[in-house]
Amino acid sequence: MKDLEAAITLIRRGADELLIEAELVEKMKRSKPLRVKAGFDPTAPDLHLGHTVLLNKLRHFQELGHHVMFLIGDFTGMIGDPSGKNATRPPLSREQVLANAATYKEQVFKILDAAKTEICFNSTWMNELDAAAMIRLAARQTVARMLERDDFAKRYASEQPISIHEFLYPLCQGYDSVAMKADIELGGTDQRFNLLMGRELQKHYGQAPQCVLMMPLLEGLDGVNKMSKSLGNYIGIAEPPQEIFGKTMSVSDTLMWRYYDLLSFRSTPEIAALKADVEAGRNPRDAKVMLAQEFVARFHGQKAAAAARADFEARFSKNEIPDDLPEVRVAVGAGMPIFKVIKEAGLTGTTSEAMRMIEQGAVKLDGERIEDRNLALEAGGKVVLQVGKRKFAAVVLE
Amino acid sequence: MKDLEAAITLIRRGADELLIEAELVEKMKRSKPLRVKAGFDPTAPDLHLGHTVLLNKLRHFQELGHHVMFLIGDFTGMIGDPSGKNATRPPLSREQVLANAATYKEQVFKILDAAKTEICFNSTWMNELDAAAMIRLAARQTVARMLERDDFAKRYASEQPISIHEFLYPLCQGYDSVAMKADIELGGTDQRFNLLMGRELQKHYGQAPQCVLMMPLLEGLDGVNKMSKSLGNYIGIAEPPQEIFGKTMSVSDTLMWRYYDLLSFRSTPEIAALKADVEAGRNPRDAKVMLAQEFVARFHGQKAAAAARADFEARFSKNEIPDDLPEVRVAVGAGMPIFKVIKEAGLTGTTSEAMRMIEQGAVKLDGERIEDRNLALEAGGKVVLQVGKRKFAAVVLE
Repeated sequence: MKDLEAAITLIRRGADELLIEAELVEKMKRSKPLRVKAGFDPTAPDLHLGHTVLLNKLRHFQELGHHVMFLIGDFTGMIGDPSGKNATRPPLSREQVLANAATYKEQVFKILDAAKTEICFNSTWMNELDAAAMIRLAARQTVARMLERDDFAKRYASEQPISIHEFLYPLCQGYDSVAMKADIELGGTDQRFNLLMGRELQKHYGQAPQCVLMMPLLEGLDGVNKMSKSLGNYIGIAEPPQEIFGKTMSVSDTLMWRYYDLLSFRSTPEIAALKADVEAGRNPRDAKVMLAQEFVARFHGQKAAAAARADFEARFSKNEIPDDLPEVRVAVGAGMPIFKVIKEAGLTGTTSEAMRMIEQGAVKLDGERIEDRNLALEAGGKVVLQVGKRKFAAVVLE
Repeated sequence: MKDLEAAITLIRRGADELLIEAELVEKMKRSKPLRVKAGFDPTAPDLHLGHTVLLNKLRHFQELGHHVMFLIGDFTGMIGDPSGKNATRPPLSREQVLANAATYKEQVFKILDAAKTEICFNSTWMNELDAAAMIRLAARQTVARMLERDDFAKRYASEQPISIHEFLYPLCQGYDSVAMKADIELGGTDQRFNLLMGRELQKHYGQAPQCVLMMPLLEGLDGVNKMSKSLGNYIGIAEPPQEIFGKTMSVSDTLMWRYYDLLSFRSTPEIAALKADVEAGRNPRDAKVMLAQEFVARFHGQKAAAAARADFEARFSKNEIPDDLPEVRVAVGAGMPIFKVIKEAGLTGTTSEAMRMIEQGAVKLDGERIEDRNLALEAGGKVVLQVGKRKFAAVVLE
C-alpha cells in the first residue's frame, strides 16, 4: 500500500491532470504491468526538451516496472495532409517513416530503457482497416461532440474550414488505444479531447477504459511561451554540449525548478533537499549548474558534461564576470566595428586604445577572444564585452 | 440538331431540374452513349409507382440509345446503421443483397430494357477502399459545407445528434460517380446535395463533372403527400391487377395528368392529344381507364390489363351506375340485415319485396350479387346498392 502511494506520487509529479486516479489505483492493484501508451508524430524526429517531458514520464513508468509502448503515428503521417492545404505536411513514404523511427530510437533511448520499450507503428493495424471499418468507427462519435473540441470550435465559429477527415483523426487515435489495449495513455494537455476518445472507444469495444495522464506543455527558455523550434526558445537534445549547458544556465531560477520537476532524473526528495538548500542561502547557480550538467550527461555522456561545465566555468565563473554587470546601451545602427563599440561602452578611453587591446588579444565578446577589430556588431540583442581581466559591460546593441 | 432538341425535351419531361443543360448538350454531341447513373437502396426491393419515376426516366435514356447503370448501394446496406440507433436498418448479408437484387431485377425490367441495363453494386469498388483512402476522400469536403445540407442543418440546429459516419455517406455516393465514370446522375430532388457531391469529386479525380437530373417526388393517391408505403397512398407494382386498376381510377383528374407525365410510356405528343380531347369535352374517365390499363399491362401483361378493365367496367360502367347517384343515409347502428337496409333506402316499398328481390338474385352490393338476405351492414362507410336494372342508391351507413 505504501509502495502504491509512492508510485502514484511519482506518476503525479509534474503532471497536469490524471483521469481517473481511482481507476488507475485499481489497475495497479492487479499487480500486472500496466500497458502505457504515448503517441509521437513521425514527422518531427528532431527532439527538444519540450518533447522529453512525456519521455521522462514514460521513464517513471518504466522505473515502476510497467510496459511502455512508444507509438509512432505513421499511418496518418503516410497520408500527410490530404486536403493539400498544409504544405508542411507532405505524405511520408514507408522509407522516410522508418528512417525517422531510427532517429527517434537513437534519441528516446537516451531517456527510456530500450529493453523495456515497445516501439509500435499504428499502420500495423490501421492498414488492416477497410473503408467500412472506418465508417463504423466514425459512427461512434457525433458531429456536435467533435465540434466541442477547442480548436474545432474556434475554427468553426470563425468560419475557418475544417475538412471532414480531421474529424476522423481523433477517432483513429482512439482506435490505437483499442488495438494496443492501453491501460493508460500519456499526452500533452492540448491532447485532452483525443485522449478521452480512447476511453470512449475502448468502452465500446468492451475494454476497460484507459486512464489518461496529461502533462503540461514545457515553457521555453523565456519562461513564457511553449518551448518550440519556431520560437527559438528551445534546447535541442542533439545540440552540442556547450549549447545545452549555456542555454540551461540562461533560464530563470523559477523556470529551473520547473525543469527539475519535469525533466530531471533526480528523485523528488533529492530535488526537495536542493531547493531547501537554496532557500537557506545556497547560490541557485549551483543548482542550475547541476541541472545543465545532468542534461549534457544525458545526451552526450558524463565526460562531455564535465567538459561543458569546466568550459562554462572557465569562460564565466573563473573569469569572475560579476553577477551584476553594468548595462550600457550603444546605438550601433546597421553595424559598428567592435573597437568603436568598446569605446562607446566606456571600456576604453579612446578607439585607439580599444584597437590596441584587440591586437593584444585582451578583448572577449561573450567569452570568445576577438581578433578582428573591424568585426561589425548590429543592432538587436545583448552581448558581454570584456577588456583585460576586470573590465566588463553588458552592452545592449540598439 | 433537331434530334438533339427532341432528346433534351424528352429528358426534361417531368423533371424538376437539370444541371447543367449546356454541359449535357456538349456531352450528347460527342455521339457516344452517355453513362447514366441512378442509385437504389438495397433494403427496399418492394417497389411502388413512386420508385418508378426514376426508372421511367432511365427508360427515356435507353430509348435515346444511352447506357444505363442501375446502381445497388449494397456497400452501405451491408454496413447498416453502425450507430445502432436505427433499428430499421440492420446490416444486410451478401446473400440478402443478392436476393434483393434478384427481386429488383424482376421488377425493374418491367420498365427498363434488360439488354441495355448494367446492374452495378458499389461494394465492387468500395470494398477495395481502405481506411486511408476513406480519409483522403473525407478530406475533399468541409464540415461547414456538409452542415449546409438541409436535413443536417435542421438536426444540428435542433441539437439532434448527427453521427460522423453520416458525413461520409454523401462522399461515398459521390465516389460511386467517379468509379462509374458517370456522365449524368438521376435522383430525387431530395438528393440534390449528394448528387452535386458526385460533380465535385469527379472534378477532383480529373473527370468531367457529371450532369445531374432531379426528378420530383411522386405524389400519392391523395395528391398531396409523397407516395409511400407508410402513408398507404401508394400503388405497389406487385399488387393484383384489380388493385392497380381501381387505385388508378381513384385519383383526381389533375393527378392523372401528373402520372401521365411521370409514369406513362406514351409519347409526349400522344399525351398532349389526349389532354386536348378531354379539354374539348371527352370524359376524363376514358383517359384514366387508359392509364390504369397501361399500368396493369406493364406489371401483369396485356391480358390481365384487358381483364381488369372489363371487370371494372362490368362492375361500374356497364351496370350504368349513374354518375349522380342519389345519396341516402340509413341508421344501421351495430348491424342491420341488408333486406331492411334496402327498404329503408327506399329501393323497395316493403321488406318482403326486398327479400324477394334478393332471392331472385336482383340485388347487388358494390357490384357483387348478394344471396344472403340477412347479411348485416354496420355503421361506417358508404356502399352502392342496386335493385333490379335501374334502381341505385349510394347508402351512407350510420
